[in-house]
Parts: sequence; structure tokens; C-alpha cells
Amino acid sequence: MRNVAVGIDIGGTNTVMGVVTEDAKILAEASISTQNYIELGDYISALASNIKELLLKVGEHNLKGIGIGVPNGNYYSGTIEMAPNLPWKGKVMLADELKRHFDCKIVVTNDAKAATIGEMVYGGAKGMKNFVMITLGTGLGSGVVVNGNLVYGADGFAGEFGHTTAIVGGRQCGCGRLGCLETYASATGIKRTAFELMSTYNVTSKMRDIPFNELTSKDIYTFATQGDDLALKAFDITADILGRKLADLCTVISPEAIFIFGGLANAKELIIDATKNYMEKYMLPVFKNKVKVLPSALLGTNIAVLGASALVM
Amino acid sequence: MRNVAVGIDIGGTNTVMGVVTEDAKILAEASISTQNYIELGDYISALASNIKELLLKVGEHNLKGIGIGVPNGNYYSGTIEMAPNLPWKGKVMLADELKRHFDCKIVVTNDAKAATIGEMVYGGAKGMKNFVMITLGTGLGSGVVVNGNLVYGADGFAGEFGHTTAIVGGRQCGCGRLGCLETYASATGIKRTAFELMSTYNVTSKMRDIPFNELTSKDIYTFATQGDDLALKAFDITADILGRKLADLCTVISPEAIFIFGGLANAKELIIDATKNYMEKYMLPVFKNKVKVLPSALLGTNIAVLGASALVM
Repeated sequence: MRNVAVGIDIGGTNTVMGVVTEDAKILAEASISTQNYIELGDYISALASNIKELLLKVGEHNLKGIGIGVPNGNYYSGTIEMAPNLPWKGKVMLADELKRHFDCKIVVTNDAKAATIGEMVYGGAKGMKNFVMITLGTGLGSGVVVNGNLVYGADGFAGEFGHTTAIVGGRQCGCGRLGCLETYASATGIKRTAFELMSTYNVTSKMRDIPFNELTSKDIYTFATQGDDLALKAFDITADILGRKLADLCTVISPEAIFIFGGLANAKELIIDATKNYMEKYMLPVFKNKVKVLPSALLGTNIAVLGASALVM
Repeated sequence: MRNVAVGIDIGGTNTVMGVVTEDAKILAEASISTQNYIELGDYISALASNIKELLLKVGEHNLKGIGIGVPNGNYYSGTIEMAPNLPWKGKVMLADELKRHFDCKIVVTNDAKAATIGEMVYGGAKGMKNFVMITLGTGLGSGVVVNGNLVYGADGFAGEFGHTTAIVGGRQCGCGRLGCLETYASATGIKRTAFELMSTYNVTSKMRDIPFNELTSKDIYTFATQGDDLALKAFDITADILGRKLADLCTVISPEAIFIFGGLANAKELIIDATKNYMEKYMLPVFKNKVKVLPSALLGTNIAVLGASALVM
């Protein structure tokens, strides 16, 4: 009987789940709308029935457990705590609630940490003892691995690199503070930078025909590859700020490599290479030319589902 | 026969060494001038003969090893690499050179990491799995403990928190870069802040009668306790910057506590408490009121010698 694990990626919009084998094959996948379930009980029921259906689909198996990646997920307590973009407020006993439906190991962590485990188990960080994972999505998520172990910290919430200060007194962040890194280095961050540039300069740009609510980081990338000066400048500023903050992080952690995941990571020269160049520019001499900056080896896969499954595999 | 270890603290000015027992008693201590030995060979000979003399003094013993804390000391290779304040340039094979004189385990790390081990083994961090040690001296040294282990990183040089950027494009740092935290939060940092304040404001201050090369952080503390407004403001700015950067560090590491060592740590309300207040002000909500800021429990002791000895005990 083959071993499988269920990996669940709970996002603000959708929840994606998959049944994964030991060699990282996703045998079956399903998705429900997170936002449709204002009541936690209804959500848990929908989640449980979808998982059971998926497990039926894959035939005979030995279920090793269920791993869940979710914003503000806590590894130690199996809870979600104060997640700003989820329907359920306060502290949610996620693992305990799901245990009513499944008699197996259930492990919770945040989405970026699940992706980090995914990179370590299936991706480019195989065999690395010290590395950092950066996920550039709506926000900036991160996972830090030290001595071969993911850093959870005293309370399970370590690794919120996106909420370190990039610019003192800077942009308003969803967390209620100002100038967090993710307000600059993320899909929304680069859009904010593009709008700041449009307000500062008179240079023509195709971005000037698109409203704030419609412009995507992918648009900015497309325009940049077409030579749009403001779009190129938006990438340059993003790489500058991210590179500077990564140099800071290297100074404390001294990782072997930094992996970058998310749609923006597809912009190889404009994000990966440019960030590496700025990182080297700002780096403390003793760390210069030691730390690799690489696109995730799992780009284009559902790394969050894979990583979540790896939590229990 | 009792077990002892030799702890050595190599500083830019002096090298202090001691023979330490398992219960942290320093049985014998000696000191030589680091600056007097331009040739490494002469320094190693002087070090070895002093250690041998100390070991003779303490009578019959079982030598567990020699631990050394030194700026830019590398745990993995037993070397000193590119230390700006020591007479020997480039890469110094410290452990190998000393092994010619002693047939025992010899462990090298940097001075702040040795202090961190000291706090963990003998001090206030006993039993803690996740904490940070900050030493406020001429510069700002640090050690980060995650999952019960000191973080050395991929190359052994992790934990250089004093060289993360506090103010972009800020003060010139000894490392060749601008705006490093230690140019603000250290004994010299607070002095630079005091001089900046004297240049900015017209307020009277006793500090105006003391030249730059003579004013000490202890003077600033004394004036502050006497109600000198500029001296008080210098402490306030130091605590603000250090508190903000510690909030950043907590966001990534999530420590249980932060210990502060060094002369400045004696200024309890003006440094320890004020830094804690600013740290809470800047803290990501999920970490608020969780992380203790404490003076080192080993204040007033030779923590560097104790910590170095703990490396091999």
C-alpha cells in the first residue's frame, strides 16, 4: 500500500488541497473558495468532505497525515492566529477541528514555511543546512532554515521577514505599521512603486492607461521587457530594496542560498539577478560573493500543497 | 582530578585568559597586550607560555580544552579572518598555531558568540532555546540562538547584527559601509549621537566642554542622570534605533528574550527599559509583549573568558 499525505494550502481567496506521494506526485487535487465560508464549522466540513473524496479517488493508500499551510498558521499549537485576510477572526483551533474528521497526524504552519519545506524536501535546497526562502506574492512570505531546521522561534511565528522595516515611516502596510518590506517587494509592492514613479516623473509609460485596481505585476514585467522606462525603474527599485534587506538578513543568518518563489521570480534578470547585484553591493565584506540567489526549483508547481504535504511525510 | 577549561578573550587592545572550572569559577587569570605583538608567532608564544603558567598555578587538573573568543573568529575553520582591529591581517590559522603548543581541543569563535555561550551556560539564558545576545561595547556584537544552538551559518560568520543597516546612507562604519546599527547603538554610537545633537541644538550641555576623543558613554550616562537634556536625548535616540532594529530581528527569529551586555547595559532605565519600550512600539502585532529585554545576568563578570571556556567544557 503506498504512502500518501494530504497537503492543504489555505489562501485568502481559495483553499487548494492535494494527495501527494512520497516522490512528490500530486495524485488528486481539489479547491474550494475560502471566502465562501464565513462560519468556521462550515469551512471545516467542506474541507473534510473534499479531502475524503480525494482519498477515495486515489484508491488504496496509507495516509501519513495532513499538512496545512495557512497565513499566520502556528506550528506549535496547530492554530491560525489573527490572520488579517481570512474570514475567521481571533484564534482558530484548526488542527483540533480537523481532527474530529481524521484520525491522523495534522500539522499546521504558515504558507511560506510550507513552501520552504517544499523547497528543502523536493526542490533546489535539498541537502542545504542554511538557506532562506522568499515568496513574492500579494505579500512577501519567508522561511529561514538554520542547521537543517526550519526556524519557528519561541512562539512559532518566526520568519516574518516581509514585515521587517525597509523604509522608516514608509508605506502603509496591512499589518498596521509603516514601511514593511512587503509594501515594496511583492506583486502589490512593485505596483505601488510603479504608481509612485508615475506621480514623480513625466516620462511616458503604457502603465498610465491602466487603473491601479487593474495593473498587475505581470503587466509591469511585460512593459519592462518592451523597454518601458518606468516599468524598468519599478523593477530596479524593487530589486534595490529587496537586495539591501537580504544583505541585512545574510549578516545575521549567513545562508548558503536564497530561493525566490512567486510570479515575480519568473522575471529572472529583472528580479533574481538584479536583487543579487544589489545584495552584493550592500553586503558586509566578509559575506561578499558567498550567497547564491536562485529562483525556486519548484516554480510553476503548487509548492504550497507539496510543502504542506512534506510537513507530515 | 578536577576538570578545567581555558577561556581566552582576544580584544583589539588586550588579550585576557583564564582557567575556569565546570561551575564557572575563574581559578587564575592573566592578560597580555594584543597590540604589542605585530608578529603572529611572537603572540602565539606569549599566549602559550602564559596559559602554561596559569595551568601550573591551579595545580593538578584535567584540561578539557581551550576556547577562544576573538573578533571575526571562525568556528568552523578555527581561524581569524579579516579582523579590522587586530595586528595580523588576512586569514590567521589561530587554532592550528596554538595546537603546536597544546594537545587538546581548541575551539575558536567570535567574541560576541563566546559571550552568548556564556549567557546560555552560566547566565540568564539557561534553559532557553531561542534568544539573542547583544553586546554593546566599542561596536555592537551579537549571538543568535535558535532551537538551542548558536547560529554560525553557512560560513561560520552569522550573527553580525551590528552590521545590519539602521539608517540607509547613514554614518560611516568601520566595515566600509554606511548606516550600520553599531554606528548608532554602541558606546561610540551614542557618543556620535551626542555630537550630532550638539551640532543640531542650542541647548546647553556639560558635554560641550569635552572633546570628542575624551567623551565616554559613561560620561553621557552620568550627565543624563543629572538631567542633562542632550545626554538624555542621546540615550533616547539610541534606544529608539536599537528598539526598532530588535523588533525587526524578532520578526525573523522570534526569540524568548534579548540579553544586553556591556557598559551601556548598566544604564537600566535609559537603555534596557527604553529599548524595550521602543521595540514594543515598532513590533509586529503578533509578537507584541512576548519578548523580554534583559540585562545580561553576567554583567560585571568577564563573560568573554567564561563564554570562551564554555565552548569546550
